[in-house]
Formats: sequence, C-alpha cells, structure tokens
Amino acid sequence: MAAAAPALETLSEHACFGGVQGFYRHASHEIGLPMRFGVYRPPQAADGPVPVLTWLAGLTCTEETFAIKAGAQRVAAALGLMLVTPDTSPRDTGIAGADAAWDFGNAAGFYLDATQAPWSRHWRMESWLTGELPQLLAAHFPVRADAAGLFGHSMGGHGALTLALRHPGRWRSVSAFAPIAAPTQSPWGVKAFAGYLGDDRSAWAAHDATALVKSGATAPPLLIDQGLADQFLAEQLRPELFEAACREAGQPVTLRRHPGYDHGYYFIASFIEDHLRHHAQALR
Amino acid sequence: MAAAAPALETLSEHACFGGVQGFYRHASHEIGLPMRFGVYRPPQAADGPVPVLTWLAGLTCTEETFAIKAGAQRVAAALGLMLVTPDTSPRDTGIAGADAAWDFGNAAGFYLDATQAPWSRHWRMESWLTGELPQLLAAHFPVRADAAGLFGHSMGGHGALTLALRHPGRWRSVSAFAPIAAPTQSPWGVKAFAGYLGDDRSAWAAHDATALVKSGATAPPLLIDQGLADQFLAEQLRPELFEAACREAGQPVTLRRHPGYDHGYYFIASFIEDHLRHHAQALR
Repeated sequence: MAAAAPALETLSEHACFGGVQGFYRHASHEIGLPMRFGVYRPPQAADGPVPVLTWLAGLTCTEETFAIKAGAQRVAAALGLMLVTPDTSPRDTGIAGADAAWDFGNAAGFYLDATQAPWSRHWRMESWLTGELPQLLAAHFPVRADAAGLFGHSMGGHGALTLALRHPGRWRSVSAFAPIAAPTQSPWGVKAFAGYLGDDRSAWAAHDATALVKSGATAPPLLIDQGLADQFLAEQLRPELFEAACREAGQPVTLRRHPGYDHGYYFIASFIEDHLRHHAQALR
Repeated sequence: MAAAAPALETLSEHACFGGVQGFYRHASHEIGLPMRFGVYRPPQAADGPVPVLTWLAGLTCTEETFAIKAGAQRVAAALGLMLVTPDTSPRDTGIAGADAAWDFGNAAGFYLDATQAPWSRHWRMESWLTGELPQLLAAHFPVRADAAGLFGHSMGGHGALTLALRHPGRWRSVSAFAPIAAPTQSPWGVKAFAGYLGDDRSAWAAHDATALVKSGATAPPLLIDQGLADQFLAEQLRPELFEAACREAGQPVTLRRHPGYDHGYYFIASFIEDHLRHHAQALR
C-alpha cells in the first residue's frame, strides 16, 4: 500500500491572474515545528505538471513578502511557472533570544543547517528546502520533478547561490537579486555563521558562494541583478567578489548593475520578469 | 511676487520601473494635521507633464498599500501615467475612539467631509482631495492639469464613484474595484454616514453613488471589476443596485463579474492593467 501523502494545511487561497495564490502549513520533521510556505499555481497547472521556481526571501521577510510585493504572478501565469515561497526561518521555537535581532534567529535562517546549540535543534533550513519541502510539494501540487529553479533576494540570494553550488544538478536554473555574495566577508554573514556554525571559520567556507566557486563548485549560468543605490552593497553584499571568483573559475554569471535602484521590492518588481524568463528558458 | 509653493516633505523615494515611487507628507490646512500620500512618477515625467491617476484605497489601508501590492507601476511606466495614493484618513488626531474600530475613524475616512463633532474637525477628506492635494501636486510634480483620472477599491471605490459624480468634469476617467456602491444600504456605509454625517438620513444620499445616479448626477463611462467570491459582495458592496441605477439613468457603466476572485489585492493586481489602459485612453 502506498504511504499517505504528508499532511498539508491550507491557510488561505486567492484567485490571481487566472491561477491560485495559496498559503500553507505543514508539520516539518526536519524543523521539528510547523513551517509555512506560499505556492502560486499558474493556470497551466490545471492541465498537468509545470516547472517550479522557489524564491528564498531576505531578512525580516515571511512566506508572504514576495507573493505580495514582487508582482511575479502575472509573469508566472504567462509562462506557466509554479512559484514557491518558503518562510525564512523556524517560528515559535521557544528559544530565548530568537526574536532579539532582525538579522539573526527568527526570519534569519540563512538557508543552512545550524550545528550550534540551541539553534541546531530547529534551524535546519537546508535539509527542509532540499528534501522535505520538495517531497511535500510533489505530493500535493502538479510539479515537474525534472524542472526546478531557485532564486532569491539578499539573504535569500545567498541561499539560492549556495544551495545551488552545494547541490549540483538539483536546480536547473538559478538567479539572485542583491545577494549576500561573500558572507564570510560581510557583517551579516559573520554574525550568522558564528551563531549557527560556531567560531571555527573552517566550517564557514562551505556556505559562502564566493568561497564555493573558488573551491570548484559549479552551478547553472547565473543571472544576478544589483542596484547601485543599495545601502548594503559595499559592506554586506559584495557581488564584485563573487563575480571575480566566477570569472576566474569559468562559472558563467551575468551581473547587471542598475544605477539608482535600492535594496527593496520596488527594485525587485522592476526586474522580476527578466528573472522568470531566464528560468523559463532553462526549465522548458 | 509669486507665492511660494506649499511645502512638501519627502519621506522616501525608490527607483521603480525606470521612474520613482515616492512617499511624501505635507501640513494640510484642510485636515489640520500632516497628511501622507504616495506618488509614482513614470519615466515620461522627466520630459514634461503627464496625466495623473489618483487611487483611493479601502478600509485599513494607507498611502503605501496600493504602491506595494497592486503592481501598477509597471503599467504606469509603459503608459506614462503618474499614480497618486492618498492616505485613507487623518492620523494622530487625538480624538478618543478614533482607533477603536477598523471600519470607522482612522483609515476609514470614506472620502467625505464630516459634519458631526468630533469628526468634523479633521475628517475633511473630500475638501483635501478635490482642492488642496491637487494644488500641492501641481506645484511639485509635472502634472497635466487637464488630464486627471480617479479610481479606487472598496471604500475607495465608493470614494471614486461619489467624488466623480459630485464634481462633474474634474476627472476625465473613473473606475473602481469592488466599490461600496450603495452605502446607504450597507452596514459599513450606514455606520460611517451616521457617525460622520449624523442620524438625519436626508444628508446621506449625496454621498451614495447609487442615489447620486438616480438623482441625475453623471460621470465619465465607468469601468467596475467585481470578484464573485468576494466575502463582502452581497451585504456590503451591492454593485447590482448601482448597475441598475446607471442603466435606468443612461449612465455608461461596464460591470465585469469575475468568478473565483475575492476582495483583496491578488484580485486587484490581476486586473489593474485593464484599469490603467481604460484611464490612459480617456486621458490621452
């Protein structure tokens, strides 16, 4: 007898561009707590499996942020892409201090598996995103297993780049907006890695996109958009380090620099169509 | 000597689709308090005056809601339309109870001038929107004085319809999403009108779109979109009463009914392009 599909709770569903924008929750065994995510099903999903594109959001965001602010459903409906928006960390963990900072703990999962107590108990975002969540999606939504893409913003841009470099072949298309591209050389990254991975810096390079490329990891051709009026560009993001590492290693990357644009969703919305088309072309 | 332009404070500005999404505040003499609003300047505004389209938002919303959620800047940039998003009521008025309900007081201005104390002191949204705000915009932004349109959602759809019917000729194009179309026959409207206008119902008809059309008021040809899964449709919105009044009076209206769509911004975003094109055609 086939095993029953893992349970999924529907929080809300909304008609949107001929498809459905939904929000869901499941009891995650990797995280050990309920986890939320959004799914946009394009109209084409009514007729059969479609490619699936997962967005990893930035610090302070939730599973709703991209769905509300990016304007991506219009393009996903035109191209027949499913959009998945996971929450950015475990929630309601009961861990003291999890809510104390906006750049560590809640809403700041950094898309890795923490090794340090107390975070290691629930902060297992990499295992959730690479194993449990895709299986859950395949059980409940018409997803093409051979056509998955990954993208994200800021902390989520870091997540998209590092997860793609760490799991070659899993995602056939990858892109990022304003990623934290060299986190071991950024205050956000140093704080997160020290907290989640410990003070021994030798463990950090395996979660730093620039270091991963230098060590020989590869990914599909990358599209990265960066605003030049981004207040975090020089100190936190450092895409020029990643670009240089890619050039040296022969990793294809297109880093587009946009004068005047800042770090927020008005920037993301302005270029989101280009990213969805980049993914659709690779996932066809 | 020419009078100085009334002062405007810039709260934030963000590059967006080649234009600028900004948020501003000014000391309103009509309201007697600072008022906030958003302006999206399309790229074409750098070269000269453009048509201006004002969005009136619904209950609980602010000047940011439409700018964040509707995805309208993309279309406004393509069509060369300026978008203005006023806040939905006075704020920080010090009036006891102004924050007590989500459907009256703060964020529930209903786009009229209150006649009843204590609301009459600051709740002068109609005077602000028809006089002071357009003058302020003309002084600070490249606005075509002869090309103004008005639209809105729910309470703001009521505002768009009633203000257009009460001020013929001021707006050359008008549309609405899920408007409160017959507020004297809706619990939201009855509560608001009793509070702002008093218990004498004879004063209410002048702020009810259906009653206004029945009394002979006219507006440009109207486009109205309504979701059929809207939880407020039957009790609060009642567009069928407005549609019937228009048919009887010869007021042109297109009421589009959309199966499956609810009351929120996923609905609005799905059809916003049609509205901007409706306005652009009239304002050219």
